[in-house]
Amino acid sequence: MEKILKIVQTPSNRVSRRKLLAGAAAVVISQTAKGQVIQKSIPVPDDDPTKKYGTPPGEVGTRSPFVKSVKKFSDISSRSPLQDFYGIITPSDLHFERHHGGVPAIDPEKHELLIHGMVEKPLIFKLADLKRFPSVSRIAFLECSGNFRTGKETLTPQEICGLTSQSEWTGVKLSTLFNEAGVKPSATWFLAEGGDAAVMTRSIPLRKGWDDAIVAYAQNGEPLRPEQGYPVRLFLPGWEGNTNVKWLRRLELSDQPYMTREETSKYTEGIKDGKIRMFSFDMDARSIITYPSYPQNIEKGWVEIQGLAWSGRGKVSWVDVSTDAGKNWHKASLQEPVLDKAHVRFRYLWHWNGETTEILSRVTDETGYTQPTLQQLVEARGTDMGGYHMNPVTAWQIRKDGQVLFKPENFR
Amino acid sequence: MEKILKIVQTPSNRVSRRKLLAGAAAVVISQTAKGQVIQKSIPVPDDDPTKKYGTPPGEVGTRSPFVKSVKKFSDISSRSPLQDFYGIITPSDLHFERHHGGVPAIDPEKHELLIHGMVEKPLIFKLADLKRFPSVSRIAFLECSGNFRTGKETLTPQEICGLTSQSEWTGVKLSTLFNEAGVKPSATWFLAEGGDAAVMTRSIPLRKGWDDAIVAYAQNGEPLRPEQGYPVRLFLPGWEGNTNVKWLRRLELSDQPYMTREETSKYTEGIKDGKIRMFSFDMDARSIITYPSYPQNIEKGWVEIQGLAWSGRGKVSWVDVSTDAGKNWHKASLQEPVLDKAHVRFRYLWHWNGETTEILSRVTDETGYTQPTLQQLVEARGTDMGGYHMNPVTAWQIRKDGQVLFKPENFR
Repeated sequence: MEKILKIVQTPSNRVSRRKLLAGAAAVVISQTAKGQVIQKSIPVPDDDPTKKYGTPPGEVGTRSPFVKSVKKFSDISSRSPLQDFYGIITPSDLHFERHHGGVPAIDPEKHELLIHGMVEKPLIFKLADLKRFPSVSRIAFLECSGNFRTGKETLTPQEICGLTSQSEWTGVKLSTLFNEAGVKPSATWFLAEGGDAAVMTRSIPLRKGWDDAIVAYAQNGEPLRPEQGYPVRLFLPGWEGNTNVKWLRRLELSDQPYMTREETSKYTEGIKDGKIRMFSFDMDARSIITYPSYPQNIEKGWVEIQGLAWSGRGKVSWVDVSTDAGKNWHKASLQEPVLDKAHVRFRYLWHWNGETTEILSRVTDETGYTQPTLQQLVEARGTDMGGYHMNPVTAWQIRKDGQVLFKPENFR
Repeated sequence: MEKILKIVQTPSNRVSRRKLLAGAAAVVISQTAKGQVIQKSIPVPDDDPTKKYGTPPGEVGTRSPFVKSVKKFSDISSRSPLQDFYGIITPSDLHFERHHGGVPAIDPEKHELLIHGMVEKPLIFKLADLKRFPSVSRIAFLECSGNFRTGKETLTPQEICGLTSQSEWTGVKLSTLFNEAGVKPSATWFLAEGGDAAVMTRSIPLRKGWDDAIVAYAQNGEPLRPEQGYPVRLFLPGWEGNTNVKWLRRLELSDQPYMTREETSKYTEGIKDGKIRMFSFDMDARSIITYPSYPQNIEKGWVEIQGLAWSGRGKVSWVDVSTDAGKNWHKASLQEPVLDKAHVRFRYLWHWNGETTEILSRVTDETGYTQPTLQQLVEARGTDMGGYHMNPVTAWQIRKDGQVLFKPENFR
């Protein structure tokens, strides 16, 4: 599977042919399968990189071997290393995953999307058909509604809420396809079905399809990654992850929801008096400080507190940061552009005096909704609320020695 | 170098243990080197992917084997496949490359950035030091000033102008570091020096350092890729690529430019009367239609013309598209947000009647500058202008059979 390929090089004015060959000898080109792209490995660093001709360009770039960011994964999901990220774009290969039947291997030439049910004209689209329609791109977050973990001090942002990621998504507006098929006046819902082993199905109110739903085929400039639904997925900006059905193969319009497994026995929340909340689509506003966080250590002096904030209902209006365990709050600066239904990076410059304290963030979105404390969530929903749509304020303890620890008991 | 790793999985409700194991058996995990990340391979597609448990999540995601986008490369540069892109983000591993001594292998722990010369206090920064300063992120393009190729009909957008790419860059403002070092009043320029085998050096007017220059350490959410300057590069929004010195190791402040090789014998443009233009930093506004383009074919009917437009001097104000060889022009729609000194995706919905024609795009930026024709460039600079800062209007021929060809002779 792996072989050394010869790279044709011409000596430059500055580097002798001998040096050039010495450099080229360290270049390993791996071709993983017939027809797959060529990727270089960057060789072991030199004491003085200026004394050796470097690796020449190749078909695709590499990641430095010193960059160790990876997803935390189980057999059904993986979490983005939020504490390692910069800005607002999630590298596509570090986008979180949550699958119900693993990632299917799909031939895009064979894949089809069927629109039927309460439509004038049932239609089947191949990927190439979808790409012929007018397209749209938007940078938006995608979050699993089960994005919550707590219980011990040694949790990272990745472990607490790494089931959220952000990409620039491109595709055709679902409304365009609806217009093509002709929606019958009686239709009020549609079923979205995936082509994976779970045949993931969710019922979606028709209004979302007319509003901002996208049948997406690209992510961060390139075709969707297999883990995010290649060749085509539903993308519902701001709505819980599992409704953004991956490997989308069928849309059936109806006058009622289909009451599938994933919207009845799963992806529902307990509320007060033993009742269950269903079809809770919008992801509530949330924020988390990603620096400093566990397992980092800080030093006395200036610390730029950073994190991500987002809302499934629109734009982030502001983020408050407290550096004294919630007594006082300060407005963080938001990195422009602040986009609709998108992760926003917030920053707050803090002078740490070396004393024990707690730092917290709290987002307010343009609907006026403010991220609640755990206590407020309990008051609203009762204690049997389950693990979905949990977005409480997250606190980090700062110890005297600079160690940063998660504070699960301090969800207030 | 490659081995099968066992993945622990639990059967789901929907898939039998037998099927699960059958699926897991197809998973190949390759560990390319000690300490490097684990990457899965997506197996060969099934006729019916719903009948087989898919690949479980892993440490990093994959690209579909059906996605063949690669850079065109020589021994000194590689070009982004613009015709394959969606939206405005360039996948980091498809960012163009132009090196003068190859990509050095740098240990980030050993790398240092020295600021000296006309400063009150010479300083050395390690990467960790730079990350402690307040940071900034922005989405902006980066273009090599030699980004031009012509001469035959069978050129793709990648070949014509694939030496431009776009990322979200994160780092510390150079002005922050200037303030830290204390700039002497006499300083008017600074030298930026890279730690590669070419020891790439360029002189930069101090005002750019105070304005929007960034000492960048991250790109598209992750640390810089080695090919883009890991661990740290200079990023000068809108300025020609080579001034954005990669693997940045030294900044020396001075009261005059240093007249290095790369700003005297190279990266200068011939203008009229045998004169040479030096220090031409701003990248002029430019646009190119990337769909349809060579070697694509189109069908009669609706065609969404798409492309990228940008300006090194600010925002794109509008893009005109002509579908009749320049006789009539129509405003294209611009994908929001339209960012400063950034690639913008433009779209224009066109109904092709099946006749031979030419399609062109022409950008105007917020300074009022309009992308010129080749003839206008020749009138302004003479015929001996060389290959730098060439941004002429690009035309595509549409043949009766739907074949799209570049029209080099039609640069007008």
